[in-house]
Amino acid sequence: MIIVMKHSATAQEIADIVGHVESLGFRAHLSTGEERTIVGVIGDERSLEPEHFELFPGVERAVPILHSFKLASRDFHPEDSVVRINGVSVGGSQVIVMAGPCSVESREQLMETAAAVQAAGAHILRGGAFKPRTSPYAFQGLGLKGLELLREARDAFRLPIVTEVVSPQDVTLIAQYADILQVGARNMQNFALLSAVGEVQKPVLLKRGMMSTVEELLMAAEYVLSHGNQRVMVCERGIRTFEPSTRNTFDINAIPVIKSLTHLPVIADPSHGTGKWELVTPVARAAVAAGADGLIIEVHPNPAQALSDGAQSLKPENFAKLVADVRRVAEAIGRTA
Amino acid sequence: MIIVMKHSATAQEIADIVGHVESLGFRAHLSTGEERTIVGVIGDERSLEPEHFELFPGVERAVPILHSFKLASRDFHPEDSVVRINGVSVGGSQVIVMAGPCSVESREQLMETAAAVQAAGAHILRGGAFKPRTSPYAFQGLGLKGLELLREARDAFRLPIVTEVVSPQDVTLIAQYADILQVGARNMQNFALLSAVGEVQKPVLLKRGMMSTVEELLMAAEYVLSHGNQRVMVCERGIRTFEPSTRNTFDINAIPVIKSLTHLPVIADPSHGTGKWELVTPVARAAVAAGADGLIIEVHPNPAQALSDGAQSLKPENFAKLVADVRRVAEAIGRTA
Amino acid sequence: MIIVMKHSATAQEIADIVGHVESLGFRAHLSTGEERTIVGVIGDERSLEPEHFELFPGVERAVPILHSFKLASRDFHPEDSVVRINGVSVGGSQVIVMAGPCSVESREQLMETAAAVQAAGAHILRGGAFKPRTSPYAFQGLGLKGLELLREARDAFRLPIVTEVVSPQDVTLIAQYADILQVGARNMQNFALLSAVGEVQKPVLLKRGMMSTVEELLMAAEYVLSHGNQRVMVCERGIRTFEPSTRNTFDINAIPVIKSLTHLPVIADPSHGTGKWELVTPVARAAVAAGADGLIIEVHPNPAQALSDGAQSLKPENFAKLVADVRRVAEAIGRTA
Amino acid sequence: MIIVMKHSATAQEIADIVGHVESLGFRAHLSTGEERTIVGVIGDERSLEPEHFELFPGVERAVPILHSFKLASRDFHPEDSVVRINGVSVGGSQVIVMAGPCSVESREQLMETAAAVQAAGAHILRGGAFKPRTSPYAFQGLGLKGLELLREARDAFRLPIVTEVVSPQDVTLIAQYADILQVGARNMQNFALLSAVGEVQKPVLLKRGMMSTVEELLMAAEYVLSHGNQRVMVCERGIRTFEPSTRNTFDINAIPVIKSLTHLPVIADPSHGTGKWELVTPVARAAVAAGADGLIIEVHPNPAQALSDGAQSLKPENFAKLVADVRRVAEAIGRTA
Repeated sequence: MIIVMKHSATAQEIADIVGHVESLGFRAHLSTGEERTIVGVIGDERSLEPEHFELFPGVERAVPILHSFKLASRDFHPEDSVVRINGVSVGGSQVIVMAGPCSVESREQLMETAAAVQAAGAHILRGGAFKPRTSPYAFQGLGLKGLELLREARDAFRLPIVTEVVSPQDVTLIAQYADILQVGARNMQNFALLSAVGEVQKPVLLKRGMMSTVEELLMAAEYVLSHGNQRVMVCERGIRTFEPSTRNTFDINAIPVIKSLTHLPVIADPSHGTGKWELVTPVARAAVAAGADGLIIEVHPNPAQALSDGAQSLKPENFAKLVADVRRVAEAIGRTA
Repeated sequence: MIIVMKHSATAQEIADIVGHVESLGFRAHLSTGEERTIVGVIGDERSLEPEHFELFPGVERAVPILHSFKLASRDFHPEDSVVRINGVSVGGSQVIVMAGPCSVESREQLMETAAAVQAAGAHILRGGAFKPRTSPYAFQGLGLKGLELLREARDAFRLPIVTEVVSPQDVTLIAQYADILQVGARNMQNFALLSAVGEVQKPVLLKRGMMSTVEELLMAAEYVLSHGNQRVMVCERGIRTFEPSTRNTFDINAIPVIKSLTHLPVIADPSHGTGKWELVTPVARAAVAAGADGLIIEVHPNPAQALSDGAQSLKPENFAKLVADVRRVAEAIGRTA
Repeated sequence: MIIVMKHSATAQEIADIVGHVESLGFRAHLSTGEERTIVGVIGDERSLEPEHFELFPGVERAVPILHSFKLASRDFHPEDSVVRINGVSVGGSQVIVMAGPCSVESREQLMETAAAVQAAGAHILRGGAFKPRTSPYAFQGLGLKGLELLREARDAFRLPIVTEVVSPQDVTLIAQYADILQVGARNMQNFALLSAVGEVQKPVLLKRGMMSTVEELLMAAEYVLSHGNQRVMVCERGIRTFEPSTRNTFDINAIPVIKSLTHLPVIADPSHGTGKWELVTPVARAAVAAGADGLIIEVHPNPAQALSDGAQSLKPENFAKLVADVRRVAEAIGRTA
Repeated sequence: MIIVMKHSATAQEIADIVGHVESLGFRAHLSTGEERTIVGVIGDERSLEPEHFELFPGVERAVPILHSFKLASRDFHPEDSVVRINGVSVGGSQVIVMAGPCSVESREQLMETAAAVQAAGAHILRGGAFKPRTSPYAFQGLGLKGLELLREARDAFRLPIVTEVVSPQDVTLIAQYADILQVGARNMQNFALLSAVGEVQKPVLLKRGMMSTVEELLMAAEYVLSHGNQRVMVCERGIRTFEPSTRNTFDINAIPVIKSLTHLPVIADPSHGTGKWELVTPVARAAVAAGADGLIIEVHPNPAQALSDGAQSLKPENFAKLVADVRRVAEAIGRTA
């Protein structure tokens, strides 16, 4: 961390801040410029809040130097992490496709979708049993019944399952049914939930909050990692901006930025990232072209009858076209899909 | 809801959408303009997702007409709600001040702060026992010990207590100690938590998410109300924007906007809304000038020693000045404080 | 346009708004729902401001139905426009690459860059002579001397030239030197400039403002089109968001969204869209995968010596790799480059 | 500026960057932390772009230490600047109110408004003659005729005039009619225009762009100041955010932030900052409570007939109430109005 003193800071104020830095167990390093003096703080600054120093007289601002995450960082783990899930490897040269309905609605709907996405080439089946909905009046998911159906589809199609967990007390239960625990965007900073999924030995798919920076996403991943669970995948799913023509703005820059900062695999969710089914395939192609390690795609046999997220769900035939497109793009950049 | 057909929509596509609207139990009302046909959907549209209709051929977009919240709306409850908490009324002509430390750190710190804020004129004591922190390496609060200290301060100073709840399983416990349950900004769309606080008969202080719209805030309030808990206060605490000079951008417009849409009291949090103690007093004055029913302010006897949010905490003497300022502004607009 | 009346609107208020709509030369169409009455406004609403109606008692809000642009819309021009510039066609099956230095700095720098980008496969040469800079103390471009150098490079390499125009009074001059007039992001709503470039018969490359919606971009294009200049290309170059890790957030969704709304060609600028040279190639690949008709890329023989935008400029060898990558991605989606 | 080296940076890379800093005429100061080495750059860094250094191998990022503006900064001009305009002082203890129609539409409309705002207590008359409009089909202002009417009103009511200038070539003309030249939000980074208004000896009212940071606003002010014109007032008029319920989000935090960074007076524009007339008075009160030196308010004798911005214009009687309210708030914080 560096502490920038005000233009008007006195020698005493500078001495006081140096004394305070040292009292916290850090070394202070002074650098006197033409208009400002800077105090460097030497030590593992991750336990410090920059704002803390701004309380002292004569301090203009404090700037962190290190990223606040460590286990998630490439600094100490330069090579890519590959997350292995029942024979599927995420983070290697193959681009992995997860697909399925937003919500599990019935056995028929799930089985039909599972058969279709497997036929098209998906590697992992997604489906929601516990649904976080913005309206208390909307369909909230089938709950345990949904988990059982997912398990049935898993066994029938031999596809690993990813499903969302929305509350810490559900983690143990869901971990008995699912292969991957998804933490949704609205829960990215639900720290009680992050701690709970960190305690079980199941891979975690952690979605970026719509209001969260890349740094905060990796800090949320750090929560899971710091509880001992190493199998974390992070997911770009669009952020909130001023642009009203799409539900979210898919942050394509974030794909290579995250890959440069962390060793964890990066998944792209163009279904939520756009909110409109017509945009899902072009943005899926773009995400793979930018370096995503996988995709998660909402598919429904009849989107107009879907109980949630129909507008962004692909019909099976459009999903098959997406997989074919993505495969060609993956090959164009030297990967497979 | 209205459904706007594409310029190129055929008569058959229009007929199909009319048939679909009717099959859902609504009436359809056709309006043929010069460039577009519009289908009005007559009925309580709150159970419909606009995006659903965009899946049909020939549909350009669907626009909701009603706000998605109902219990929170002034439409059916035009007069202001006044929330009563142990003799303190929030939402009436008096501007209420809640104040105290970000985190409860020790008995001494809490008692000293409680004495100071009471002396300055605060009506309610705030303090965090369970802290949601972005870093797993940061102070996480005293937990149950913190609750006990809050209870002790409550009894000693006869001030009602507001404290944050971060997990559904903690609601019952915290409700035994606190007078007001706070749902923090990062949990505004933690629907499991909203449902849980809706089930207890304790007033709720619901903070706006940093990237949530006013409509979403009132929808989150609707979650609590729909579970039977009528004592909800909503809180503007700043939103995330592109501006880097402050931690958040306090949305002053939201104060009169929320007051026009809902009967619930509106509290302002200039501590989080600015992130810098020097800005807290001017923005507190502004919030009251704009019509806020109350303030929640972080105060610490020694901000430079605070374990969290020190940079935005006021010293007791500055808090006393804030209260004096706010009182004069409240009187200038015909209220008291 | 539709006008949504308040829940509490009286019959007289509804009658008054109907009368007002008719007095403006439009037809009014009433639709009575369960909680709201809606007044449809029949006619070419583009001359109306929705906010106008919100002034009348009993009106909740007015919602436009039509896009505000007409000449730029696919409604009346469904097929793609192809812009022809001295033998180069933008908007057809071939992905066009424009490349060159941010600023023209010297004859040597420009000629070396022009030779390199042509050898790598670029179709059009870019270079700035008049530079809009956020600091009055920064390099402002070579001005007329820069234009002359661009003209020299144009003749030597037979590459069409694109350069920025920043002031209405410069349009005529620059049009004598350049093949394409660029309107920069900061001038997207400089209406005096849009009108001026609309008056000359030179193709225009119109960049999206960093905080402009897609609708506003197409409305700016409408300004140029409405002055009689039909050769307009629009350019996505990143928008401003809360994410600090990149200079801008490249809005990949906007590529297919713009293509669906307008017949005009869409160019992608990953140099400004990311602000970091390491991110330019992956985002360029992504833009082409999403359907962009062309790219504009900053290239400098020695970025560390560049007088502007060095951090986002590619070295010639990295640009050659970008072109090779982009070609493979274009082929993967059935185009050429 | 400080340059943060990567964790993996070699001794040679550090030596190279030190050499490069010195070759640019600055001194380099090394600080070796536990995980990163930092190179301090000693000298007036305002001529350097931080991104420049990020091109060098081993560099993670560069962080500017100084604000990029100097003439606008309090560092070298700690006391408030007071701008004097024909007997009106802006920036002193009195809060100044500018008011009038968005556009000058006719002699009657202007004279009626001028009489009303003067009677209510306004100090300066506003009115637009050259209007920047997002649609080429909308009313563009009366132009020269509008200027003449403003001059007539100025003489009749002895009120100084503020009007917008949209193009560099109009500056000389408008300066003959107006007392204050307004640079609008969409032109805040129209550097040709900023230079032009910097060359005349007329006070300038510079509005913050809806996409601009406080730093960029002060940098735009620096453009004007650096051309020799010292009478600059900056204006907060709302920024663009994700919140759709208001036209802009008025950045109340910016009022005290700007006051702390610059000596220039700060004006608030709650008309554009909200976009809705019902919100103008509460937000005007808030702006004054937060420390604004003045207000600029749109007033129209008949907003429903206004040719532009009717929805945010106050009727004369509501404006009179606003002035009365603002006066009481100003007195509550020890100022006059």
